[in-house]
Amino acid sequence: MSPLAADLPPFTADDYRARMDRAAAAAAGAGLAGVLVSPGPDLLHLTGYEPPPTERLTLLVLVPGRDPVLVVPALEAPDAAKATAGPLLTLRDWTDGRDPYALTAELLGAPGRFAVSDNTWALHLLGLGRARPDTGWTALTDALPMLRAVKDARELERLAAAGAAADAAYEEILTVRFAGRRETDLAADLAGLLRRFGHSRVDFTIVGSGPNGADPHHEAGDRVIRPGDTVVMDFGGLKDGYGSDTTRTVHVGEPTPAEQHVHDVVREAQQAGYEAVRPGAACQDVDRAAREIIEEAGYGDLFIHRTGHGIGVTTHEPPYIVEGEEQPLVPGMCFSVEPGIYLPGRFGVRIEDIVAVTEDGGRRLNTTDRAMAVVE
Amino acid sequence: MSPLAADLPPFTADDYRARMDRAAAAAAGAGLAGVLVSPGPDLLHLTGYEPPPTERLTLLVLVPGRDPVLVVPALEAPDAAKATAGPLLTLRDWTDGRDPYALTAELLGAPGRFAVSDNTWALHLLGLGRARPDTGWTALTDALPMLRAVKDARELERLAAAGAAADAAYEEILTVRFAGRRETDLAADLAGLLRRFGHSRVDFTIVGSGPNGADPHHEAGDRVIRPGDTVVMDFGGLKDGYGSDTTRTVHVGEPTPAEQHVHDVVREAQQAGYEAVRPGAACQDVDRAAREIIEEAGYGDLFIHRTGHGIGVTTHEPPYIVEGEEQPLVPGMCFSVEPGIYLPGRFGVRIEDIVAVTEDGGRRLNTTDRAMAVVE
Repeated sequence: MSPLAADLPPFTADDYRARMDRAAAAAAGAGLAGVLVSPGPDLLHLTGYEPPPTERLTLLVLVPGRDPVLVVPALEAPDAAKATAGPLLTLRDWTDGRDPYALTAELLGAPGRFAVSDNTWALHLLGLGRARPDTGWTALTDALPMLRAVKDARELERLAAAGAAADAAYEEILTVRFAGRRETDLAADLAGLLRRFGHSRVDFTIVGSGPNGADPHHEAGDRVIRPGDTVVMDFGGLKDGYGSDTTRTVHVGEPTPAEQHVHDVVREAQQAGYEAVRPGAACQDVDRAAREIIEEAGYGDLFIHRTGHGIGVTTHEPPYIVEGEEQPLVPGMCFSVEPGIYLPGRFGVRIEDIVAVTEDGGRRLNTTDRAMAVVE
Repeated sequence: MSPLAADLPPFTADDYRARMDRAAAAAAGAGLAGVLVSPGPDLLHLTGYEPPPTERLTLLVLVPGRDPVLVVPALEAPDAAKATAGPLLTLRDWTDGRDPYALTAELLGAPGRFAVSDNTWALHLLGLGRARPDTGWTALTDALPMLRAVKDARELERLAAAGAAADAAYEEILTVRFAGRRETDLAADLAGLLRRFGHSRVDFTIVGSGPNGADPHHEAGDRVIRPGDTVVMDFGGLKDGYGSDTTRTVHVGEPTPAEQHVHDVVREAQQAGYEAVRPGAACQDVDRAAREIIEEAGYGDLFIHRTGHGIGVTTHEPPYIVEGEEQPLVPGMCFSVEPGIYLPGRFGVRIEDIVAVTEDGGRRLNTTDRAMAVVE
């Protein structure tokens, strides 16, 4: 069965129990007193619970050797109880007018150092700091950067399915007309295709034509695409709760030798980055491998971003594939390899695949042709 | 011209300059060294800039007596420059691999105490704390809770327009059929009506029929609405960037005397809360006025949430109308007054208007009939 058609079963309470146990064990291994997790991707990953964001404190308290506790506003406790991991959690609810930080402080036990999820609000962290001045705090990404980075088999299955859906969207977009249409029209086509191939959420559909392709942050604008344009398309979102993110650069009609050359360099750099993926290599090694090709070709100053980022329940997360990141790669990690060259005022080229670290190398989760496709 | 049809001009750089000046002055008045603002409603309110949320640090640094500075990822600097307030901001961009906290630390000046917007990520606050151990931090809502709470004339215009649109949606929903349809069908109707009357975003369309109305956190489910049901409808979102939030409780066919009695009590409580709104009264006075009516009627234990919350560029913000909140009301504040009674397993009643504090009392921004409408 193709991953596009696969009917992926939901995660079970056992899946979430294993993840919470792993997080607690990782905390203990790092000398932490525990992990505090706010609503967002970390809580979703650990419990499947995804409350609406509000200013009211919701916090998962994981302390090694104790059962997980969820501090939750009373109004939201019934929803929390209904989450897949709900039966595993002791709910400590609090009503408006009470101090949730005092309540949480009692759950933390002896003085120590806690990791708090990166996106925990400052409001809450400062409230906890007041309630527990004897306790230290560190960002989860700093303390346990790889907590969500290593995907289990059922997560990899979802990431592969999301990648296959993005690939199907790319194959389809090659059949539509580019010349004479606006970037936003193509972006809308891509969004529709991602949804058609099973995405529940589209996070971005970047279409950078001609000089707009030279701005890696350009999204899609009113520019009408013309024959002779190079067009960068970078698109992704969530399918079955896991992310896709891929980039291909196409050309309207035949490219010039200069355009083809730049594309060849980026393609070679992307291949070099991919080939550098193996257990034990450092994140920065993948960046260096890709960057070296571009630098040797004389375009080093025009590769103005890091080589990649992790992907999972979000489309942007650790590990970061960047100079200075010495974290070794571990089987199950998934991240983008996406070098680019940006010639201001002229055009840009970027090629991106999601790559999963395997036991002996890397496996691309995007497998469409990386050659520069010629579109009409 | 009706507020529904009004063509509201965009905020200008002068509007944003005035808000940033006010924030800096408020900081100085509170003995703070400055204010640090992350992407989200505070940054939107102060600059009109609303970048996509990422893990990369974007931070507005407001220090009294100095020009505002925006720390921004290099890739996003062009977008920041294009924001309405862009020309007022000195942009300090940083590229991947650099330490944005060291860069920010240099901008903070002499040791002091900074307010940080509530939703600033712990990752960033802890990073700043490492870079500036000599500096103290406090949550913006704790230090300057009323910074966004007092709306200027142009904001009030928008809130009134959003309220009028929500009122128009309510008038329309009364004409549709309830009996035999699912709560989710009515919720979809409400969302469509909010959009039809100019909302760009629908945040919630709660439809709680029969016993589901007794759970104030119930959203909308598969329950088929039946004759004899009491139905709580709580709906709102953003129109022209400002929020609506209103609740009415209707009945399918004629209510029983018991149902009517509960509704009468809530309506009287809502009126009492509204009448308690005047400059100088404390937030908690409004809560107490509404709560007292419900307690005297013997339903005190069944009014299980605070009486209200502020509204502006979000549908949930300070001031909070809750016991213990002694903040005095100031003309220009806008918040909900929404008492309710929830009879588990039977039904619920809630009535909610947005009320703006005027020079001598309060002004309702929702003006539809608060009597229990009978629907079919």
